[in-house]
Amino acid sequence: MMPDAESVVGSTRAGNRAPEAARARAGESKSVWELASRAKRASGDLARASSAVKEKALRIAAGLLEKDADRLLAANAGDLAQAEADGVAPAALDRLRLDGGRISSMAEGLRDVAALADPVGEVVDGWVRPNGLRIERVRVPLGVIGIIYENRPNVTADAAGLCLKSGNAAALRGSSTALRSNRAIVEVLRKALSESGLSADCVVLVDDVSREAAATFMQLNGLVDCLIPRGGPSLIASVMENATVPVVIDGDGNCHVYVDRDADLEMAGSILVNAKMQRPGVCNAAESLVVHSDVAEAFLPAAAEALSGVELVGDDEACRILPGIGRANAEDFGREYLALKMSVAVVPSLDAAISHINSYGTGHSEAIVTRNVAAAERFLHEVDAAAVLVNASTRLVDGGQLGLGAEIGISTQKLHARGPMGLRELTCVKWIIRGDGQLRQ
Amino acid sequence: MMPDAESVVGSTRAGNRAPEAARARAGESKSVWELASRAKRASGDLARASSAVKEKALRIAAGLLEKDADRLLAANAGDLAQAEADGVAPAALDRLRLDGGRISSMAEGLRDVAALADPVGEVVDGWVRPNGLRIERVRVPLGVIGIIYENRPNVTADAAGLCLKSGNAAALRGSSTALRSNRAIVEVLRKALSESGLSADCVVLVDDVSREAAATFMQLNGLVDCLIPRGGPSLIASVMENATVPVVIDGDGNCHVYVDRDADLEMAGSILVNAKMQRPGVCNAAESLVVHSDVAEAFLPAAAEALSGVELVGDDEACRILPGIGRANAEDFGREYLALKMSVAVVPSLDAAISHINSYGTGHSEAIVTRNVAAAERFLHEVDAAAVLVNASTRLVDGGQLGLGAEIGISTQKLHARGPMGLRELTCVKWIIRGDGQLRQ
Repeated sequence: MMPDAESVVGSTRAGNRAPEAARARAGESKSVWELASRAKRASGDLARASSAVKEKALRIAAGLLEKDADRLLAANAGDLAQAEADGVAPAALDRLRLDGGRISSMAEGLRDVAALADPVGEVVDGWVRPNGLRIERVRVPLGVIGIIYENRPNVTADAAGLCLKSGNAAALRGSSTALRSNRAIVEVLRKALSESGLSADCVVLVDDVSREAAATFMQLNGLVDCLIPRGGPSLIASVMENATVPVVIDGDGNCHVYVDRDADLEMAGSILVNAKMQRPGVCNAAESLVVHSDVAEAFLPAAAEALSGVELVGDDEACRILPGIGRANAEDFGREYLALKMSVAVVPSLDAAISHINSYGTGHSEAIVTRNVAAAERFLHEVDAAAVLVNASTRLVDGGQLGLGAEIGISTQKLHARGPMGLRELTCVKWIIRGDGQLRQ
Repeated sequence: MMPDAESVVGSTRAGNRAPEAARARAGESKSVWELASRAKRASGDLARASSAVKEKALRIAAGLLEKDADRLLAANAGDLAQAEADGVAPAALDRLRLDGGRISSMAEGLRDVAALADPVGEVVDGWVRPNGLRIERVRVPLGVIGIIYENRPNVTADAAGLCLKSGNAAALRGSSTALRSNRAIVEVLRKALSESGLSADCVVLVDDVSREAAATFMQLNGLVDCLIPRGGPSLIASVMENATVPVVIDGDGNCHVYVDRDADLEMAGSILVNAKMQRPGVCNAAESLVVHSDVAEAFLPAAAEALSGVELVGDDEACRILPGIGRANAEDFGREYLALKMSVAVVPSLDAAISHINSYGTGHSEAIVTRNVAAAERFLHEVDAAAVLVNASTRLVDGGQLGLGAEIGISTQKLHARGPMGLRELTCVKWIIRGDGQLRQ
């Protein structure tokens, strides 16, 4: 019934080759070029598809994910069995695992994205020139967005959903560990696209899981308009090293909570515990506590007790106040633990706190707890990070919590997108200029 | 009086070395690292400098440029003499040459930029979350902007002025041909900074003009937040090849004028002549004429006459109608001539015109001339370019003409900035989040 959707992704049948495939250089993966070329061709129509059609595709996909849950679980079981046989670590196995609840979450995620406002066509601004030229800047899709990610199959549906809603074709490259699961999910997405009257090639999955294919995937200049890595430091480093296409980095978070001299120490304690412990393994979790020396004696012992189960390492002063903890060196202060471990620095001033954070932070999310408005304002303006918070937990810095509806990641770069990236960050602007014969004088 | 401003740029005196200079790897230019480190240190205070102080610095610099005109002309005479001795081509000599008028233009340019609205601190948007969290997204400077450019000395003042107004330190690397001129201009800028109470290091000039220094300049990760090349295809290619810092490309323009079946042919003729001939050597000049076959016979002979002095090359149909012109191949259609030469294609439909432009264009500026609203709308939405125009000359696509006040370039990339780049494009956003103890649930 749906030959286009069924034949799926990754096929290298000669009869299907895009002309662009010829552009692949020696040593590059031709199948990757082919797939990206197909996505590029599909992206033109998708960019002009109505919100109604895109919404329909996402809702159909959500329904099919639930309906095909058994097939998805069977595919995932294959991945899990292989991963277990290969000795994959338990935490990675957990990320790989699908169950009924996770499939429902993927489906609900697609429905949530379907319900969001469409960023495409939004008039960002506009004006009229003295010569009568009428100018508008309008949001348009980027084109083809490449997503390279690790072994969480839900990224396949989540990322593709955000790309489609924002009018972009998605070229996906997950890890080999999750290949069966990803194939099954992409089949569902492609079927939903075809049923909605869109090209199935609006979503393609690179199923060549060789390193060569990954490198090619990062160098699809002219086919991929933006590459977004979703994963840990080694993936990010590989993208930084190899990518030649434009990249938006979903970066590390060495996030700090600074407890000011004028902090409400009770509030500071609850923010600290939430920032560190509510979910330690994610980028907006706090990794370092910075305390003003005037309140260190009063705050640290209670804080250490509240952070029960968290290994602390500190500077000289922290170790004096908390004799049981380990000594922290510069490397400890620079580390994103993503675990129940935290560095502690005692500083003599707000200046020292800001300087410490600007030295060791990764420009992600930084919080101050204070009742002092001048301290708050200085912190907000002098700390160089994507997000700065006063009297709130760093864990609140994500697209859902901040009201973007959904996010594709959190950027720690400054160009294009900074901080949580929602649908708008998957678009660019186009200048639309209307005249009646205007010339350059 | 101003030792800081006088000692200038490019010094490699050991006593002046920034600690970061140690980070320069073997084979890299240490002086480049030092200079960029100084700019980085200066950028923090500059980012928080008031609009009044920045405006003052720009106005003082404008006054000093005029006052020091003789010294600037003497320095420029040195560059010109050397360039002539080296056999530099006349067109390049002209770009290199300063005179009283050009110095006045630089000064006026700085005053114009001083008078523009300061983008820093602009609240882009903001809202309140259900939990009471108050969110603002605020424009902040990028930090240090690297500008690498060719032999036009006016770029030194123009680019530095835009960087300063937008709160960014500027690290400049011009060509060796213009070194004396650039040194003299940068001395003036640094003196003005010091006189305004800002660090002179808000503007630094790399005066190591070796290729090694250029390569190092493109790889100052952690020091340069954004690199903008201003120059021709070989400079752009070198940046694409070598840069590891984030880049915004001021790209080529293979711009088209499409004369639709429903065009006002008189208007089409005047737009065509303006787009091609008003200033042929710039990126928004038209390089290719595309004509609907229904009006080709009526339009082309008159157009060819109006384009007197322009060498035309065309496809079969164009050659049939204009028997004297040369035959154009795919390479001709893909070329940015920047000269009095133009390719001509006759197409059977609007679809064919859009397809031709999307195939051969560089995504810069594309114009349609038509009275048909449906054709205009399709062209605006289906042509993939930074700027699309109806019934207006492509030459109008620049920051000044479109009302940005000034521009640092015209981006043909999609991420971060697309089309004319003004002061806002030299900023990024920062999330400012204010709470009263909010936690992640």
